[in-house]
Amino acid sequence: MDCIFCKIVSGEIPSSKIYEDEKVLAFLDINPANKGHCIVIPKEHYENIFDISDDALKEIIAAVKKTASAVNKAANCDGINILQNNNKAAGQLVSHIHFHIIPRFENDEVNFSYKPGKYLEGEINEMREKILVNITGN
Amino acid sequence: MDCIFCKIVSGEIPSSKIYEDEKVLAFLDINPANKGHCIVIPKEHYENIFDISDDALKEIIAAVKKTASAVNKAANCDGINILQNNNKAAGQLVSHIHFHIIPRFENDEVNFSYKPGKYLEGEINEMREKILVNITGN
Repeated sequence: MDCIFCKIVSGEIPSSKIYEDEKVLAFLDINPANKGHCIVIPKEHYENIFDISDDALKEIIAAVKKTASAVNKAANCDGINILQNNNKAAGQLVSHIHFHIIPRFENDEVNFSYKPGKYLEGEINEMREKILVNITGN
Repeated sequence: MDCIFCKIVSGEIPSSKIYEDEKVLAFLDINPANKGHCIVIPKEHYENIFDISDDALKEIIAAVKKTASAVNKAANCDGINILQNNNKAAGQLVSHIHFHIIPRFENDEVNFSYKPGKYLEGEINEMREKILVNITGN
């Protein structure tokens, strides 16, 4: 499979690894939003949050927590964003599920804010009903 | 405790709940980045990813996956961002750990991109070493 992250897992492409266990790998992003920015991936290829197993996802999030705590100390930052993008429209550039760990500093140039929207009367309940019929195993 | 999310858990403040289990609650954000934007929280109060237990975090991420899949269908969106902010500098407005599930559409007005940075020679290895000494239980 022509996946850059699978090639990082196999070692075909080198990376600055910071954490590795049987199922998960974390490495520094070479084009960081801020220095210390890293990427946490499952070694097995899953495309996004919709197709990964619960078990694999749980292993990743435990590694994200461990890595984020270490990055927080190492980068001596003021905060951290955890960001996981699904599909191109959401900014996913590599189709192998990954979590960004992004160190943040007061008044840095990263901006993940958005313009808060509003629901017209009744719209939020309509959306709620649509979501409820699609929640499985609840 | 004067925490708005604890009050949502207790029912003191109403919310548009879309998922609930023993440990986790998900509800629609009333000021969405895009319609269908929801928030997933642990019922127990933890401030951020640094102080939550691995077990609690794993329960949340399983609920995030389940909820994101339902939102993806209900909002009929082109992608989804999962965003979890830690500390004020990272945009955390409520000090009760929460995951945002944000539906995305091609050419919408949400922008979570950033200017890719660079490391000077040697800097990435320095950062790697600093992180490695702070990774625990590896």
